[in-house]
Amino acid sequence: MELRSGCPINLSVEVLGDKWSLVVLRDIMFGNHRSYGELLGKSLEGIATNILASRLKRLVAEGLLTAAADPAHKQRTNYSLTEKAIQLVPVMAALSAWGTRFLPVSPDLAARARVMEEGGPALLTDFMEELRHLHLGAPPPERSALAQMDAAYRAAAKGARK
Amino acid sequence: MELRSGCPINLSVEVLGDKWSLVVLRDIMFGNHRSYGELLGKSLEGIATNILASRLKRLVAEGLLTAAADPAHKQRTNYSLTEKAIQLVPVMAALSAWGTRFLPVSPDLAARARVMEEGGPALLTDFMEELRHLHLGAPPPERSALAQMDAAYRAAAKGARK
Repeated sequence: MELRSGCPINLSVEVLGDKWSLVVLRDIMFGNHRSYGELLGKSLEGIATNILASRLKRLVAEGLLTAAADPAHKQRTNYSLTEKAIQLVPVMAALSAWGTRFLPVSPDLAARARVMEEGGPALLTDFMEELRHLHLGAPPPERSALAQMDAAYRAAAKGARK
Repeated sequence: MELRSGCPINLSVEVLGDKWSLVVLRDIMFGNHRSYGELLGKSLEGIATNILASRLKRLVAEGLLTAAADPAHKQRTNYSLTEKAIQLVPVMAALSAWGTRFLPVSPDLAARARVMEEGGPALLTDFMEELRHLHLGAPPPERSALAQMDAAYRAAAKGARK
């Protein structure tokens, strides 16, 4: 890839690529969707098969994901976040806080964003530790940031159905 | 624009659009390039005329920029950041910190990023106040974050030339 300039903001947007790459990383990060089938079937935005395949390939090439055969189903490939991708958590949190403030977000999905914003840097640190546990085999964290976000999401979704 | 989902991260990447939109916002935010000519002529990445024109139009439509005739040169349009765009400062800072850590950044451009990272939330607050002064007519801040970043950039650029 030919890079347009050495500016850190430019390089980041070049590497993170188009709109779909961050959404695929989001599903692996927040939803723990780990295989092509799961990423396709549970995609909120209905990602197309060819787009998903090309973005997974690109994210592996960029060192943001690693691919490995699933120990239980040898034909299936599981994707894991690398440390480089895990350190995108503050970028995801900043995008999420901004989106919640200015864009027409769904209340249930905004609940997750609110947990991240209210939890501040300490919650993001816990979340990154948890991702290192799930993706890189590090020891589990004391508190699960994902569990806190999922609980807020479920409570908001339940409230919305009433 | 048809939105793919109500997820705040998805909405943010949809609204921020492609790779060029954030780079144009960066030049207005950090470089105070305010006109089409300045954005084109000083573009580090050599943005093409048609891309710049379409992104400016899109950013105005999204409520991230406002366009107004330059009081001194009536034929020239000046662009200003809106509050919605100014609140992208934390997103820019997170992208910049991540890029500086993981990507092949130029040392002079990384110097600005380092000022933002070391300054933490207080510097970002000052920077947003300064942008409100430059773009929205608010009173000037006590300290100029831009001056701090520019001084670091100039010192690093001077060091690199030795």
